[in-house]
Amino acid sequence: MQRYFVAPEQMTEETVVLTGEDARHMGSVMRGKPGDPFIACDGQGRDVLANITSVNKDAIRADIVRTLPDSAEMSWRVTVAQSLPKGDKLETVIQKGTEAGAYAFQPFLSRRTVVQYDDRKEAKRLDRWRKIAKEAAEQSHRSRIPEIRAVCGWKSLLGQFGQYDIVLFCYEEEGRTGEGMRRVLAGFRNRTAKAGAPGVLLVVGPEGGFAPEEAEEAMTAGAVWIGLGKRILRTETAALYALACLAYEAGEMGGESNA
Amino acid sequence: MQRYFVAPEQMTEETVVLTGEDARHMGSVMRGKPGDPFIACDGQGRDVLANITSVNKDAIRADIVRTLPDSAEMSWRVTVAQSLPKGDKLETVIQKGTEAGAYAFQPFLSRRTVVQYDDRKEAKRLDRWRKIAKEAAEQSHRSRIPEIRAVCGWKSLLGQFGQYDIVLFCYEEEGRTGEGMRRVLAGFRNRTAKAGAPGVLLVVGPEGGFAPEEAEEAMTAGAVWIGLGKRILRTETAALYALACLAYEAGEMGGESNA
Repeated sequence: MQRYFVAPEQMTEETVVLTGEDARHMGSVMRGKPGDPFIACDGQGRDVLANITSVNKDAIRADIVRTLPDSAEMSWRVTVAQSLPKGDKLETVIQKGTEAGAYAFQPFLSRRTVVQYDDRKEAKRLDRWRKIAKEAAEQSHRSRIPEIRAVCGWKSLLGQFGQYDIVLFCYEEEGRTGEGMRRVLAGFRNRTAKAGAPGVLLVVGPEGGFAPEEAEEAMTAGAVWIGLGKRILRTETAALYALACLAYEAGEMGGESNA
Repeated sequence: MQRYFVAPEQMTEETVVLTGEDARHMGSVMRGKPGDPFIACDGQGRDVLANITSVNKDAIRADIVRTLPDSAEMSWRVTVAQSLPKGDKLETVIQKGTEAGAYAFQPFLSRRTVVQYDDRKEAKRLDRWRKIAKEAAEQSHRSRIPEIRAVCGWKSLLGQFGQYDIVLFCYEEEGRTGEGMRRVLAGFRNRTAKAGAPGVLLVVGPEGGFAPEEAEEAMTAGAVWIGLGKRILRTETAALYALACLAYEAGEMGGESNA
């Protein structure tokens, strides 16, 4: 069934209205008519099944039949802090990370960030990143569009650590030993089993990795170093790879065998 | 330290020789001279530390100092069977899957494969896919270049199932229930704990998913249906996502907490 993300003000308790591109899509492409159903998501976690009541060029009105269970969201709220990579790699990180269930993205600048960051282009890039997140959220049938935050500096990122229940700092030097990440995550799962949706910050470095001082500063600020296994992952692969492990540990692929 | 993949015939028990592009790279770019060390991998799992003994334009000769532990390979040998996706997406699957530790790739054609497959272009595409696998293997510090097999048909793929210890069939309909994959993998880990390097076939469908008849045929041929969680993943994301879960379960990120 067709899914649309709508702004919260387009949805009341009982009705929903599609406007703009979505109205044109439902009217002209899908040839929607009164009585036809669709799914509307407010992007904040509320998905509803709605039946069309009226169709015109600029607005499709519908009655909400029922609220759907919030089934496609990960039980851990994982914010991906990604050191700004070269070229359009952040677009890949946002697209794939959204598919993989990330809750939000926080791009940041670190010592070895290679790109020249241009403040003046920021608004335009943010718009593009948000569009990619919205499209990936629709495509992967999520009920929430991950928030894309403005690029911040390293000190500012460190200052955010306290807002999370755990900060996972992906550190290559730790990864080579091949130990620990699973132990950390299983411990976290046990500690937070009764919490609602614990907040995780996943910190991924740039192409050249983190500087040792940064790793030390992160640990001092409360982060746990984790390795992502024995192979060297590209910066644009790391977040997706880690998100899969987090979803796995959070129980999204079912529980463990007792065998 | 610089790493080079060499053909098995370039490496004896005691010596290794770099030729062609690798010799030019070590000679001109790295300015290697007698006594300098490098790492050579035969692509079959043997990595050696070698010291240069002689340098000329077409060949760099070196003595092997010692064989290095085969540390960057996954303990499960995972062959990714990917239904041929549109455009250059198979290149993404091979690049990221190699980083993630895949043992081999078997592209295949299924009922809903959208691409027009052209036999005549096969040799050229295979060459390109193999080049991508080699580069990704070097970049991720693997000691093995994954084998890229020629594209095969669905029936031929079914016929290969018997060669593996387990066949995991990624099936969206199974995924929505969010159950089972972890149970399947944990059971497999327990059963194969004492085996050397068990063989896994991971079967990923095309853009439009598998036809229900294909899912039935796969199960009849011995495959286990698994879901990759609650969100709909793009075909080019699925293998990487699943490989991360397999590496996690195979123990690559350490063992579990007893807490």
